[in-house]
Amino acid sequence: MDPSQVKIPALADLTIDNITDNVIRINSLNPDPRAKYILERLVEHLHDFARETRLSTTEWMAGIQFLTKTGQICTDVRQEFILLSDIFGLSLLVDSIDHPKPPNSTEGTVLGPFHTHEAEHMSNGDLMSKDDNGEPLLVLCNVKGVDGKPISGVKIDIWETDSSGHYDVQHADRDGPDGRCVMTSDDEGVFWFKAIVPVPYPIPHDGPVGQLLKKLGRHPMRPAHMHFMFEKSGFDHLITALYLKNDPYENSDAVFGVKNSLIVELGKVDKKTAEKYGVDEGIALMTYDFVLVTEKASFDLRAENSKKALEKLGRRVKIVEGLPVPDVD
Amino acid sequence: MDPSQVKIPALADLTIDNITDNVIRINSLNPDPRAKYILERLVEHLHDFARETRLSTTEWMAGIQFLTKTGQICTDVRQEFILLSDIFGLSLLVDSIDHPKPPNSTEGTVLGPFHTHEAEHMSNGDLMSKDDNGEPLLVLCNVKGVDGKPISGVKIDIWETDSSGHYDVQHADRDGPDGRCVMTSDDEGVFWFKAIVPVPYPIPHDGPVGQLLKKLGRHPMRPAHMHFMFEKSGFDHLITALYLKNDPYENSDAVFGVKNSLIVELGKVDKKTAEKYGVDEGIALMTYDFVLVTEKASFDLRAENSKKALEKLGRRVKIVEGLPVPDVD
Repeated sequence: MDPSQVKIPALADLTIDNITDNVIRINSLNPDPRAKYILERLVEHLHDFARETRLSTTEWMAGIQFLTKTGQICTDVRQEFILLSDIFGLSLLVDSIDHPKPPNSTEGTVLGPFHTHEAEHMSNGDLMSKDDNGEPLLVLCNVKGVDGKPISGVKIDIWETDSSGHYDVQHADRDGPDGRCVMTSDDEGVFWFKAIVPVPYPIPHDGPVGQLLKKLGRHPMRPAHMHFMFEKSGFDHLITALYLKNDPYENSDAVFGVKNSLIVELGKVDKKTAEKYGVDEGIALMTYDFVLVTEKASFDLRAENSKKALEKLGRRVKIVEGLPVPDVD
Repeated sequence: MDPSQVKIPALADLTIDNITDNVIRINSLNPDPRAKYILERLVEHLHDFARETRLSTTEWMAGIQFLTKTGQICTDVRQEFILLSDIFGLSLLVDSIDHPKPPNSTEGTVLGPFHTHEAEHMSNGDLMSKDDNGEPLLVLCNVKGVDGKPISGVKIDIWETDSSGHYDVQHADRDGPDGRCVMTSDDEGVFWFKAIVPVPYPIPHDGPVGQLLKKLGRHPMRPAHMHFMFEKSGFDHLITALYLKNDPYENSDAVFGVKNSLIVELGKVDKKTAEKYGVDEGIALMTYDFVLVTEKASFDLRAENSKKALEKLGRRVKIVEGLPVPDVD
């Protein structure tokens, strides 16, 4: 860029008090109003954080090194920054903001770092886990709208750990996907499959995030759960999970994912059900009715919530493509 | 950790409004009051940032991917997170907080990512740059206290780019340090050496930080400068740099490092000086008197500034080991 074209005030002699305005001003050369707003809030919070803590150079360097290690442990199958976001409650917060749920619809929760795009497609009744050590589980679910009508043709990603508490991608010697599948709801909105009873497990804690949890005196455990992700054109993408009632970590989930409406009590398969679904009588049974929101309802609710929340904070905004930007006229 | 030992309130059913308090509460299991305070401020600002922007999942994921790439481009000789901190003005802010300067002392500025620990020790009069294409420069400096008395035995790290605007470590085929040295001030507080005239150069902009600058419509240039770092027991560590007057990027430094008191006008070596220092008459001359602050004066000033600034923000703190922690009694 030709320096004579830089339309900013002189950036020399910056101090603790004037640097924030100056950084925001130079970042505002950017023509995208949404990006401009995000950068403005980011820089102000970053600087306020340093000012309010009176951050020392040593502490700053510890932060730089922590972030570097966090990036460097990431691989195709390990995402340490998502873990970091999870243990700070940011992931759940962002999901709550982005996917507001009207009453009587299924709540969302954290995606976690273990969803993959390689799961096989399964039909109703198929077995999702090859783990012989897992406790057999029959899962009977259906998908409907807030109007109570079944929704067919929904693509459903489902994933869980094996009985040792590890996802397939955590095994270096794995020979393909396991404990995960993609299903499609049938004409009655039903999908059902065989799996294993989920177990509590630690998030990967041999890296920077695990070390941080240890320093904070926090455990890395997640209560037993099974992940579900629902996708159908016209409906808001639902990322959620079902949690087993009475899990020892139900109230201290390392990633803040548990919601009361997502806690299920396992039943036992009775004789009639066993015959109908071709499974052994007495095995564990999980049932759930998932309720999806239309894309439009979710879009409108998100926009309405954003306007209200920001007005409450004294910020006047307009909604552009569903997201708030400052309303300057 | 035994889940029955977790002394926290139930973390289920967290919402946009109550998640921050709950994350802060579980992080407060940590017994270190300074770390507790830093984490509290970090989580609150992180969450407020998401709430104020109504951050979308797509934007959050873009952030996760940006941080991951930033970590993964780091090597032993490239620190992209320091660059990121630099272009957001955070590095200068932290230096200003951590190394407050009383009037008449030399101001600090950004360290940058190119200081190394492998520079050779040089004596007064040595040549620091092996670059034959550089414009010869004679540098005459001295170090004194705020009382005006010379300070001997100060260890001084000095580093600059070559005439192409690259530090030694940026050349893959380098065979040792160049453009950098360590000197010691003599009995009169003097240190002097031969170097080359600094040139403006871009910060490394082939990675995530460069892409961000481009998106923001910002250039990656730094005005011509030479780095200096001063270290002596009993004195506050001084990280600074001298900037050449009238550089085209003097007012738009990509990393916000320029301070008026650190801008120098190059002179020309006259006949007498040329004879005294054994250099050619007419080459460029840079002179500067660096003024160091004692460790105690800096410590006291930092503590005083911290208390004042935080009281102004309505926070009651006490200073522990030089850094503020909430004063709760």
